[in-house]
Amino acid sequence: MKNQEQVEKMRHTLSHVLAAAVKELYPTTTFGIGPAVENGFYYDMNFGEVKITEKDLAKIEKKMRGIIQRKFKMERVEKTRNEALDWAISEKQPLKKELIEELPASETISFYIMRDNSGKEIFTDLCKGPHIRESKEIGAFKLEKVAGAYWRGDEKREMLTRVYGVAFEAQEELDIYLKRQEEAKARDHRKLGKELDLYTFSDLVGAGLPMFTPRGTLMRDLLADYSLSLRKRAGFSRVWTPHITKVDLYKTSGHYAKFGDELFMVHSQVNGEEFALKPMNCPHHTQIFASLPRTYKEMPVRYMEPTTDYRDEKSGELGGLSRVRSLTQDDSHVFCRTTQIKDEIKNLVSIVKEFYTEVGMDKLRARLSYRSDEDKYLGDKKLWEMAQKQIKQAAIDNGLDFFEAEGEAAFYGPKIDFMAEDAIGREHQVATIQLDFVQPERFGLEFTNEKGEKERPVMIHHATLGSIERFMSVFIEHTAGWFPFWVAPEQVRILTVNDKVSQYVQKICSELDGIILEKPIKYNELRYSIDESDDSLGKKIRRAVAMKIPAILIVGEKDMEAGEVSIRLRDKEEKVKLKGLAKYLREL
Amino acid sequence: MKNQEQVEKMRHTLSHVLAAAVKELYPTTTFGIGPAVENGFYYDMNFGEVKITEKDLAKIEKKMRGIIQRKFKMERVEKTRNEALDWAISEKQPLKKELIEELPASETISFYIMRDNSGKEIFTDLCKGPHIRESKEIGAFKLEKVAGAYWRGDEKREMLTRVYGVAFEAQEELDIYLKRQEEAKARDHRKLGKELDLYTFSDLVGAGLPMFTPRGTLMRDLLADYSLSLRKRAGFSRVWTPHITKVDLYKTSGHYAKFGDELFMVHSQVNGEEFALKPMNCPHHTQIFASLPRTYKEMPVRYMEPTTDYRDEKSGELGGLSRVRSLTQDDSHVFCRTTQIKDEIKNLVSIVKEFYTEVGMDKLRARLSYRSDEDKYLGDKKLWEMAQKQIKQAAIDNGLDFFEAEGEAAFYGPKIDFMAEDAIGREHQVATIQLDFVQPERFGLEFTNEKGEKERPVMIHHATLGSIERFMSVFIEHTAGWFPFWVAPEQVRILTVNDKVSQYVQKICSELDGIILEKPIKYNELRYSIDESDDSLGKKIRRAVAMKIPAILIVGEKDMEAGEVSIRLRDKEEKVKLKGLAKYLREL
Repeated sequence: MKNQEQVEKMRHTLSHVLAAAVKELYPTTTFGIGPAVENGFYYDMNFGEVKITEKDLAKIEKKMRGIIQRKFKMERVEKTRNEALDWAISEKQPLKKELIEELPASETISFYIMRDNSGKEIFTDLCKGPHIRESKEIGAFKLEKVAGAYWRGDEKREMLTRVYGVAFEAQEELDIYLKRQEEAKARDHRKLGKELDLYTFSDLVGAGLPMFTPRGTLMRDLLADYSLSLRKRAGFSRVWTPHITKVDLYKTSGHYAKFGDELFMVHSQVNGEEFALKPMNCPHHTQIFASLPRTYKEMPVRYMEPTTDYRDEKSGELGGLSRVRSLTQDDSHVFCRTTQIKDEIKNLVSIVKEFYTEVGMDKLRARLSYRSDEDKYLGDKKLWEMAQKQIKQAAIDNGLDFFEAEGEAAFYGPKIDFMAEDAIGREHQVATIQLDFVQPERFGLEFTNEKGEKERPVMIHHATLGSIERFMSVFIEHTAGWFPFWVAPEQVRILTVNDKVSQYVQKICSELDGIILEKPIKYNELRYSIDESDDSLGKKIRRAVAMKIPAILIVGEKDMEAGEVSIRLRDKEEKVKLKGLAKYLREL
Repeated sequence: MKNQEQVEKMRHTLSHVLAAAVKELYPTTTFGIGPAVENGFYYDMNFGEVKITEKDLAKIEKKMRGIIQRKFKMERVEKTRNEALDWAISEKQPLKKELIEELPASETISFYIMRDNSGKEIFTDLCKGPHIRESKEIGAFKLEKVAGAYWRGDEKREMLTRVYGVAFEAQEELDIYLKRQEEAKARDHRKLGKELDLYTFSDLVGAGLPMFTPRGTLMRDLLADYSLSLRKRAGFSRVWTPHITKVDLYKTSGHYAKFGDELFMVHSQVNGEEFALKPMNCPHHTQIFASLPRTYKEMPVRYMEPTTDYRDEKSGELGGLSRVRSLTQDDSHVFCRTTQIKDEIKNLVSIVKEFYTEVGMDKLRARLSYRSDEDKYLGDKKLWEMAQKQIKQAAIDNGLDFFEAEGEAAFYGPKIDFMAEDAIGREHQVATIQLDFVQPERFGLEFTNEKGEKERPVMIHHATLGSIERFMSVFIEHTAGWFPFWVAPEQVRILTVNDKVSQYVQKICSELDGIILEKPIKYNELRYSIDESDDSLGKKIRRAVAMKIPAILIVGEKDMEAGEVSIRLRDKEEKVKLKGLAKYLREL
């Protein structure tokens, strides 16, 4: 943690170095603010008539390195508000002046002066700090990009130029970061989503509302089928609920207050009734549970539903599939007795492990979030303690890599959050398992126990994928579009060398038609296509590789004569006899 | 048609007979209106302090038959508005007075006087007519039910009592009608939906928004899977689109004006953006088609999507699944060349035939709706003529029972509507196939043809089930809840005679676990449960029959010793050897 503070100070100081360099290169520049951020720093500046682009960054960076070589020290001084204002006026810094004017008249205001080793002032800035003491504490850095940013985030104010830099303690860390950035760019799911024809947006439909093409829909469905099949095995039944509801449902559940303006409100033009688009599914599922009298013999009752929820994210936050307004959850809810919590959690944890191992993201960490002593937690304290113990036992029994976080629970119950690492080392929050002592209370849910008394169930919320859209964004980047064979939309493409092999291609197709994969989902019929166009074989291969088809079958006359096909996988090429083809593909 | 007019006159006269009878029994009654309606007639009346229930109907009906025996004639007379008002005042008929007051002062107002064969007045009513001339023209009738109705349909006005009657030319027709009513009542999907635990409503969620329980969801999914599997075979690919869109999409498509206040408007609290819940899916699908440049080689492009649309039906119209606000369509769209219309239509017609034959509704009629000479039809007239010919040819080639209806087409293209007859002879509008020349134009859809020119595709809309909810309402009533084996939510239930057979039951289960039905949908794993409760066998059987389980397996010690099970189907019972069980069930 100490280390982290030091890194943040260093990044913050680099923003001053950036400003100092800009001031020497463009003396009329006026300055906004320049904080440290994750992985680096930025400064918002007004270059006046000068237009700064990424081409100018090398020059500015060179100047920054020159300043660092002057072995500066950072000196903190204090001024009264009037002195500070005088400074801003004489330095012709209107943005700084605006910041100072908003401070109380009595405030003592801190400044940081950067001085070279002869004591000469390099650059002075209004700043709360903290900073490193001297330039030798600076690690490795690089200017990264240029963007526009409204002054104070207000679109009615002037547009400033924001220059971003990245900075780490050691060059090695910076290199890793830059390499990962480059890899991430090549894997960007927005780029791959378009190249692989998985989904599309339309201005007529709106931001954050992706539409899935046949290829993308196949992937969605296969991933959801797999996730739900694991829960089906564990006794979950599918249910179906509508996407809208009277707001009464959320007033009862408490979500109306919680979701606030993130709720999309739906308005009846016919009679003025107010509905909301559902932002989650638990309240609907309580109504199915409550539709019949229940007894202890039926418990646990387990529902699952792959369904689309709607949350009104701000347009600025939307991009690709990471953050959408239409999020499809592979949602589920268990209604169980308090004595059944442990087994249910254990089942769900093992499902999460199985799923993420299968999709190649087996580096999984779990955070067990418990209550603290604060008053905000609802439900019986003894129930909490018992449930927390059961959660921990389930984590141990499943051999989870976990850590415990007191005070991180939701107000309605303890939970487990899972973080999975992708192929380039980034960690993503994925599945979650949450206990809920509050909704059963609010909806008055109950069942009759062995003694004929009414008993209240506990609810357990769980989604394995989380949102299908967000999972797809992670999965596309994790695999770089080279999807596992079972889930690739087009698994096999046959390329013909010329039209003399047509009849032989038909024989190959009869082989392929009979192939049904049984793992990890059953009844997965092989998906293939044939490229019999007049294009050259080279062009056909390039086209198939660009679509990242896992198995490309190349069929020429020699193959036909030998009764085999040439199979080109991502990393190798080999000849396979036609009669061994089905077995070969089944094992991919 | 002449006959129909005569029947309506007779029904209208019966409403006067009803009022006459009521007046004799309850002299202070005041009268609203009493029209003929489908299958009969009603009269809205204010009985004052008297509370009329269905128990009173026999007495009123007896009085009506007495009046008919008096061999009345109907006489039309005219009064001036003032004379009419005087009549209403002297007769103490304030509701009639109100009706008269709304007529223009100069209006000549007609009355009908019912006189017995001695010329004596029985009952006089303000009425436009027409009526039959005399009582011998009256056929068979029966008073049916009592309901409340606001005067003039206005909930701020007084609540009147509406007495309904049914009437037909011949007693035979009435008997058929009443028998069908009785059958329909026993099959009512609202009653069966509850008894068979298929779906539920919640006041917190709202009217017209059903939630499907595990059993109902299984049926929904199986029916949709079957319908979509037929189209998958015909080259359709699934796509996925969100449930909301910016209204711009519907302003472009023209649906914004067409759907009017039936559109549910969605409002962003974050930035005030206006969206709509989709009432249909074609505009979204055009956006997927338009997301890539297309060539003639790809045509036809075929998309299908089982998805939920929202239409704001008035609450008063909502009940069960016949009319809902959340309607899930097994929707699809073909984008094809004009030369491909016939083959595409032919494929779709054969899919409709196959589906409805399989679900036991093979009495299918089709209406081919063509344009007339009016100006309202959009698109090239030659294209229409060609398309209409192709539709007819497709109907002939598929051996459809069809009729042609000029002037019944939608403004955007000709169509085929299918009507299916259910088990008690009622006809339901089911599937539809519609050509569309307009949306491709409005969205500027195009593909490149062999000559490198841009060409406009034609769209074909089709849903086999129509709305899943509406189809389920028809299907539940058609089957009276005795669903075909493949689609029954719980196909088999094992009932144990006592706990001595537990091990044998496990052996039976291993047999059942291996059963996968392959028709009409593939990979349909057998669904079964076990009733091992302490209840008597009789009680277990009653419970299983009440749930209309297609195959009930009764297992006692004798069965165990003989290595067999007793199978109870809806209409027979037989013994089957354990090793023949799988084959037996597969053939159900």
